[in-house]
Parts: sequence; C-alpha cells; structure tokens
Amino acid sequence: MRTRFQEGLDELKDKLLRMGGLAERSVEQAIAAYRQHDAKFCEDVFQTEHAINVAEREIDELALDLLAMQQPMASDLRFILAVIKINGDLERVGDQAVNIVQRVLDELESPVGEMPADIPRMGTLAAGMIREALEAFIHADADLAQRVLLRDNDVDRMKREVELAMVRQMQRAPEYIQPALDTLLIARNLERMADHATNIAEDVIFWVRGFDIRHHAAEE
Amino acid sequence: MRTRFQEGLDELKDKLLRMGGLAERSVEQAIAAYRQHDAKFCEDVFQTEHAINVAEREIDELALDLLAMQQPMASDLRFILAVIKINGDLERVGDQAVNIVQRVLDELESPVGEMPADIPRMGTLAAGMIREALEAFIHADADLAQRVLLRDNDVDRMKREVELAMVRQMQRAPEYIQPALDTLLIARNLERMADHATNIAEDVIFWVRGFDIRHHAAEE
Repeated sequence: MRTRFQEGLDELKDKLLRMGGLAERSVEQAIAAYRQHDAKFCEDVFQTEHAINVAEREIDELALDLLAMQQPMASDLRFILAVIKINGDLERVGDQAVNIVQRVLDELESPVGEMPADIPRMGTLAAGMIREALEAFIHADADLAQRVLLRDNDVDRMKREVELAMVRQMQRAPEYIQPALDTLLIARNLERMADHATNIAEDVIFWVRGFDIRHHAAEE
Repeated sequence: MRTRFQEGLDELKDKLLRMGGLAERSVEQAIAAYRQHDAKFCEDVFQTEHAINVAEREIDELALDLLAMQQPMASDLRFILAVIKINGDLERVGDQAVNIVQRVLDELESPVGEMPADIPRMGTLAAGMIREALEAFIHADADLAQRVLLRDNDVDRMKREVELAMVRQMQRAPEYIQPALDTLLIARNLERMADHATNIAEDVIFWVRGFDIRHHAAEE
C-alpha cells in the first residue's frame, strides 16, 4: 500500500512532467513565431508562459508540503530538491521563449527577409535537450542525462557560428544591423534554454548517482 | 542552549553571506577588467568564480544535511529552501562575470576606444542590488527586498538605452560593429545579474512573508 507521502511524490513527478511539456511547447511556439513572423504565434507563447508560472508555483508548494509532511529518506530528499531545481530551470525556459517573441514582435514592423542562421534547427536541438533531460529524470537514467550534457556543446558551437554570421551581415549594410542583432540575440536565448536543459541533466545525475557533478562538468 | 540544528542554520546563513560577498566581488572585478582592458583583472574573475563554485557545493550539502537531520518547522523549511535558491542565483552571477571578462579578453586584441555606454554605473547598480538583496535576507527585511525589485526597472531601462546607443554606433561605421556588440552583450550580462538579485529579493519575501510573489511582481 502506498502512503500519502509516496502518492505525493508521484503527483510531484507528474506535475513536473506536465511543466516540462509546457516548457518544450513554449520553445516550439517561439520558433514557429520566428518562422512565420506572426503575432498570433507570439500570443501562444505568452499564454504558455502564464501556464508555466502557475505550474511552477503549484510544484513548489507541493514540494514544500512533502518536505514538511514527514522525515524524508535521503533519496526522497534528493529527489524533492531535484524537482525544486528542475522546476526553476523549466520556468526560465518559458522566460526565454517570451524574450524571443518580444524580438519577433519588434521585427513585425520592419521585416527585412531571412537571415542566414538556422534558428529553427537550434530550437529543435534545445527543445530536444529539454525533452531528453526530463526523460532521463522519469527513468532515473544518468547515462541519458550525460548525453544531454554533451549536446550542449553543439548548441554552443551553433550560437558562436550565428554570432559570426550576423556580424558579417551587419558589416555588409546598415539595414541589416537591427535584424541581424535580433537573430543573434534569439540564438543566445536558445543557447540559454539548452543551458537550462543542461542544469536539469546535472540535477538528474545528482539525484540518481548521489553526488554533485556540476562543476566537474564545467571544468572538463 | 542552541541545538546542533540551530547551529547548522547559523552556519548556513554565514556561508551564504560569504558566497554573496564573492558574487558581489566578481561583479566589481569584471567591471574593473572592462574599464582597464587588463587580462590580470580577468584572471581575478576566474579565481573568484572558482571560489563561488566551491562555496555553492558546500552550501547545498549543508542544506541537505540540515533537511535530513530533523523534521524542520515550516519556517525553518522555508528558510532552507530560500538558501538553496539564493545559492543557485549567486552562482549564476559568477557565471555572468565570467562571460563579461571573456568578452573583455576577446577585445584585448583589437581595442577601439571607449563606447558611449555607462557600463561601470550599470555594474555598480547590479552589485548594489546583490548586496541589498542579501542584507534583506540577513535582516529578514521584506521591505528592503521590495525596494530591490523596484531597482530592477532602472537596470532594464539602462540596458535598453545601451542597446539603442550601440546600434547607432554600429550604423556609424563597420569598425564599431564588434566592440559595440561586445558592449551591448556586457550590458545584457549586467542586466541578468540584476535579475538574479531580483530573484533573491523575491525568495527573501517568500521566506519572510510566507507567500509567493514571484509572478505577481512579474505581472505588475
């Protein structure tokens, strides 16, 4: 028979997975908004961000209730703390999606055609990293989490490539400066989303393996 | 007589304050590096970031030990969770300082004189917000924390002003594009530091007042 505490832990996991689905959706919606140059898609991102903020608070409250409910075992404690941290990272993914569509909205007034940067591919990579980091969390799979860490390097590299390409665009003609800057900053938003996925993967490894790899990974 | 648990809480607070001092120092060192265009100052930031990373891990471990040690009261629980979140934000301030000096190091090879942006003033503001958010934490002063939230608007406004000024610089001549972009991105790093101070202030208010203002503040 499951105790109320164990049921609470299951509920916490379910809520976090739904939150992860929302965060992933916000990335996809932001990329759609960027591709379509459409205010309607931007509105979707604002709505998703609102849902993310509501979910974040519910998860934190449930986690706090569970910690107060009984003396958790060390592994449950690490699990609950991992949820609290992952929750914070997912919420920030939503913030980044909002930053992207704010740039898209600014651009609606003065569209200047496509920039030579594969923003959709970066978005797909970042969304995939978030999804895999959460899969690693569901299955307590530290190896999968480790693979997410490696993919962060790809996103970093793409971000640097976009930056170089956009500086070249800017140098070509003044009318490219603002749109190239917008694209460069959107690439940075996507790279920060991938960083949040990386943080999540690190929290999963901490929870599963019981030791902290954060700054080991950083120093490698 | 103080229990071992209460002594642990005091130690946790002390460690977090020292961590806050390190984070603040990393901001000041990054600004000094930007002003002086000096690799030596950049090295200071890398060292401080290393110390921050070590401190972060110690604080998380102590917080986990305290949660496992006994059934904390609701207010102690909220305090410990606030410490865990504040700890994460302070660590990210150190990351932003590193990002700033990486830009400074890139620029060392091709200096092009001063950009019309008051980066030092933004840095002073951001460092002051971090210091005040931690003072609010030491004194459990929700009113002071609230004032930190208001100052975030000033930093946001300065960031937007720097962005406009830098776009104008870029439009003036191609040789300004890279240094103006660097300055613009440094202003964004400083603005993110101020965001972390804002997060800390929100956590203080949550801890002191016992309710969550995060997305109320965001919606105002």
